[in-house]
Amino acid sequence: MVYDVKVYVTWKEGVLDPQGAAVTSSLNKLGFDGVEDVRISKMITLKVEATENVEEKVTAMCEKLLANPVIEDYTFEIEEAVRT
Amino acid sequence: MVYDVKVYVTWKEGVLDPQGAAVTSSLNKLGFDGVEDVRISKMITLKVEATENVEEKVTAMCEKLLANPVIEDYTFEIEEAVRT
Repeated sequence: MVYDVKVYVTWKEGVLDPQGAAVTSSLNKLGFDGVEDVRISKMITLKVEATENVEEKVTAMCEKLLANPVIEDYTFEIEEAVRT
Repeated sequence: MVYDVKVYVTWKEGVLDPQGAAVTSSLNKLGFDGVEDVRISKMITLKVEATENVEEKVTAMCEKLLANPVIEDYTFEIEEAVRT
């Protein structure tokens, strides 16, 4: 069975996101007032073929490679891939 | 009114994503078989204060700064921020 997986890797609260701060400042300079708290996170999409335990497999991938659990949180969504 | 906005900036189909290719290869080397088509996209979260036309404002931000419309697609979700 093939699954479409989306992993969202976000900064933990309190971790500085310099890229987000730069984007906040740029948006304000471009004339977009009232924009705050820009945070740039990663969305990782992938296809995973698995017969069972796909959640465990994705969790292991997040812990080992996709996220840095010291400073990042992750969540994911798994759904069966549509056959084409 | 303050809105919580999530912008998803993804590569257009056909655009090479070298970072995704590297992650695919690393996952395979780590022993995760059956992983394919890894694509690394951006999820940008921000707070926007607006009295009206918040969709238009966010679209303009995407076109002007957040996405590169030549090689990237964007979608966004807007919801009213929960007051705390």
